[in-house]
Amino acid sequence: MAAPVYLVGVDVGGTTVSTQLVDERLRPIHATTVATDTSSPDATLESIALGIEQTIREAAPAGTLGAIGLGVPGQVDAANGVSRMAVNLYWYDYPVAARLQAKFGAPVRLENDVRAAALGVYQFDNPAQHQDLVYVSIGTGVAAGVVLGGRLVRGRNGLAGEIGHFIVEPDGPLCNCGVHGCLETLVSATAVIRLARAAVAAGEESTLADCRPLTAKSVYDAAAAGDPVAQRITAGVGARLGIALRNVVMAYDPECIVLGGGVTQAGERYLQPILAEWERQRASSALARAMLTAAKLRIADPTRNMGAWGAVALAARTLRA
Amino acid sequence: MAAPVYLVGVDVGGTTVSTQLVDERLRPIHATTVATDTSSPDATLESIALGIEQTIREAAPAGTLGAIGLGVPGQVDAANGVSRMAVNLYWYDYPVAARLQAKFGAPVRLENDVRAAALGVYQFDNPAQHQDLVYVSIGTGVAAGVVLGGRLVRGRNGLAGEIGHFIVEPDGPLCNCGVHGCLETLVSATAVIRLARAAVAAGEESTLADCRPLTAKSVYDAAAAGDPVAQRITAGVGARLGIALRNVVMAYDPECIVLGGGVTQAGERYLQPILAEWERQRASSALARAMLTAAKLRIADPTRNMGAWGAVALAARTLRA
Repeated sequence: MAAPVYLVGVDVGGTTVSTQLVDERLRPIHATTVATDTSSPDATLESIALGIEQTIREAAPAGTLGAIGLGVPGQVDAANGVSRMAVNLYWYDYPVAARLQAKFGAPVRLENDVRAAALGVYQFDNPAQHQDLVYVSIGTGVAAGVVLGGRLVRGRNGLAGEIGHFIVEPDGPLCNCGVHGCLETLVSATAVIRLARAAVAAGEESTLADCRPLTAKSVYDAAAAGDPVAQRITAGVGARLGIALRNVVMAYDPECIVLGGGVTQAGERYLQPILAEWERQRASSALARAMLTAAKLRIADPTRNMGAWGAVALAARTLRA
Repeated sequence: MAAPVYLVGVDVGGTTVSTQLVDERLRPIHATTVATDTSSPDATLESIALGIEQTIREAAPAGTLGAIGLGVPGQVDAANGVSRMAVNLYWYDYPVAARLQAKFGAPVRLENDVRAAALGVYQFDNPAQHQDLVYVSIGTGVAAGVVLGGRLVRGRNGLAGEIGHFIVEPDGPLCNCGVHGCLETLVSATAVIRLARAAVAAGEESTLADCRPLTAKSVYDAAAAGDPVAQRITAGVGARLGIALRNVVMAYDPECIVLGGGVTQAGERYLQPILAEWERQRASSALARAMLTAAKLRIADPTRNMGAWGAVALAARTLRA
């Protein structure tokens, strides 16, 4: 009988590194979060190494480290384990897998963080065992991870699913990517905050003026509490999201769409304005009635870090490969 | 040594049935086109059978019929060889494969016509051997067939790639699907004709008034000949297509996008307004400069019926399976 192995999944963010340790049957053993030191490319890598070491030290699991999976922001060359471009981490063509493999002596698999989270949802938050699903991450930006037929859809450069850069309003706000009117300028958590701040700055009467800090989720809370300005904002963002997620359904024809990111923890209050737009389309369209069902849309399990669990799924695939 | 086999690929349209006969090395032997009789579901099937029989009779190939592939419009249950819904053919849950298999004694594989054409482009019009490509069909409607990693992307209901039903202008024209502002209401060949007719009806001075018949391609011809009304229409449609195809790039991250359909036979005159929009985005965006390169966009080989050749590819896969 082989000695037991344990696996590590790491979600690497610009602020924190979250590490999930599991046994070889992928049962959770221990999780930690450490701060990301982005003072240099190597410092970021060192934060990851520290997070992994701390997790292993605290858990003291039996056996040996079998594999490491990582979800990292930006563009990833998964085949070579290289971060092609992660602006917030200052990584450009940085050989993440090789460095960590040298340090820990275990195979390392890398993927874009949102695509990794989609694998996490597919493997660990998928009670109906859907084989075709889209995970949509809504935060500072907006992006999708797409699993079809149980396989991650990557595209040529690993950028398939960059729905946040769908241009939806050519005269809309300027996006970080350099063009106007990308989806994420209109529906990201950042966009919700921008709209709320603009309303307050324009002197509109709203409880939003008293929110400290003003987060996207607090706008949904204010809307639920009856604040009309917050309600107008969440209805408008929901209508746009309802159209965007219809387009996601048309693009990939998934069995379900799973939403994640801090703002989605508003739960039903977050889903309701989206479903109102779907209902509007269903009223006049057989195609919408067939394809845009409320059952197709849900929010990811908020008690699990899907990024870290997706990285666990990556690590497990390394073992099988 | 086994007896030689030949294969048949059939592109089934509401007007014509195009059949391509090939040898077992997929070299063309003979092609025919017959009219589609859509007076009943069974009549449509009979048209297909007649087309296949005529092609075989005229070519009198050596050996036996090895397999039949079909591309049919609408929603297809590929696994069971059933046309789920093909409005123009009056097929609803019609068992196409079983019927033809009983008639011809050879395996039959069915796919949606645009997805089949994407396979045709992948296998027969792909000099660079791209593994990730999107075929966009522009005709009465607009739809995409997506090949990623050399595999056809189908989604749960075989509807992945229905980009013609991306809502891009919620206050736009009413789509056949029942909602307003779907992409195909703005950029299909039908939309180009509608815009040209509207300009003529509004009394605008244009050579388009003299076009008999007024086709989408004739609008591109008039634009090339200097007609300012036609130029305004093609520039506007091109800008919208440029945005839509950017969104296709963001959705699937293909190595190339291949455009097909009668209107695209305008060639460079068709591509130029699209590329002008891409150039506009490239001017301000590193992401656009990386992802939206002129080399990524081309028009399908107009000398081959990609639908029929895609059906040949389906037939060949049946043999290998």
